[in-house]
Amino acid sequence: MRISELSERSGVTIPTLKYYLREGLLHPGELQGATRATYDDSHLERLRLVRTLVDVGRLSIERVREVVRAIDAPPAGRHELLGAAHEALRPHPASGAPAPEALERLAALDLPECAHSPASLQLAEALTAAAAAGWSVEPETLARWLEAMRAVAETDVVAELGEVSPGEALRYAIVGNVLTDPVLLALRRVAQEAVSAERFGTGPTRSPG
Amino acid sequence: MRISELSERSGVTIPTLKYYLREGLLHPGELQGATRATYDDSHLERLRLVRTLVDVGRLSIERVREVVRAIDAPPAGRHELLGAAHEALRPHPASGAPAPEALERLAALDLPECAHSPASLQLAEALTAAAAAGWSVEPETLARWLEAMRAVAETDVVAELGEVSPGEALRYAIVGNVLTDPVLLALRRVAQEAVSAERFGTGPTRSPG
Repeated sequence: MRISELSERSGVTIPTLKYYLREGLLHPGELQGATRATYDDSHLERLRLVRTLVDVGRLSIERVREVVRAIDAPPAGRHELLGAAHEALRPHPASGAPAPEALERLAALDLPECAHSPASLQLAEALTAAAAAGWSVEPETLARWLEAMRAVAETDVVAELGEVSPGEALRYAIVGNVLTDPVLLALRRVAQEAVSAERFGTGPTRSPG
Repeated sequence: MRISELSERSGVTIPTLKYYLREGLLHPGELQGATRATYDDSHLERLRLVRTLVDVGRLSIERVREVVRAIDAPPAGRHELLGAAHEALRPHPASGAPAPEALERLAALDLPECAHSPASLQLAEALTAAAAAGWSVEPETLARWLEAMRAVAETDVVAELGEVSPGEALRYAIVGNVLTDPVLLALRRVAQEAVSAERFGTGPTRSPG
């Protein structure tokens, strides 16, 4: 298809398509002469990924470029794949390196597989930012939260990932996290309401406690 | 203290302080003549809140203004407080209203206290965005995630919130979610690594499955 049809079918404007092509987010079409190119379903699929990362994941263009490059040339090992997915999604921390206290907290969680991984770095950075703003997460709370998130991860890391190509496994891990992180955070709020209703009552006329 | 000392002690530049004053994020100091004002610890505390919301929560200036207004004039009921906190933190959805299917999914979760709350709207929006990008969360998965997030919420909604002022309870709910949402998401990644290592092995040389 021509770029005009690609634009119509993907809902992405032609100037944005040209921008994605220039920035390497979208692979070039097949050249038909000096100024014309044709595009196929692989371009539609890639655009769907890019829009998900931009619209839902709010990733920067630089991050999206890293993601599509990693998907096109994925690492070979399953565990390295997950590290690549996590690295692509790791937020840029507002402050610098994680505090030594945060790294000690991680060591206490006893996760030998995860030492120095992008995920543990992200955890150390999140704990450092919370502590810098005066919010400390108690060790027992952190352990309970890890247990809860382990139950979530049991549904995330599906057996089928052992059977698909590395690029597909990487895409699954990145898109899955981008699309369901907001679901989890919304579920946390919903659960807070349920617990608050039980503990403090629901109406403004009922006294707390 | 003068604005120069407020700037030094808060680490916020004078132009940014003036911007916050103009935008209503920071309450005015006490006027000492036509052009001078003095500031106190309440300004330092407010700046700490604003910086947390901007730097960690990545909230827009408009959202931060809504938060500080809500904290200065909080609703009276405990449950309304939580709704106000959740509304302040609810992301602007990329698409429009939630799909009817997403609202049905919520109804199936049997959370009568939360009907039409900002949290349930956020959940419906997150499910709608995921579905629009081709990712459907199975009902059993959603129920397991809710159970996991309920364990988290049990530690979030602390009994002490029944004893503090409404403004303080609101600040606690907002700052707590802003600072610990990133911790939870990082714990999810760390847990994914642990589960992946168990299911697929850790090294690139071991075969998956």
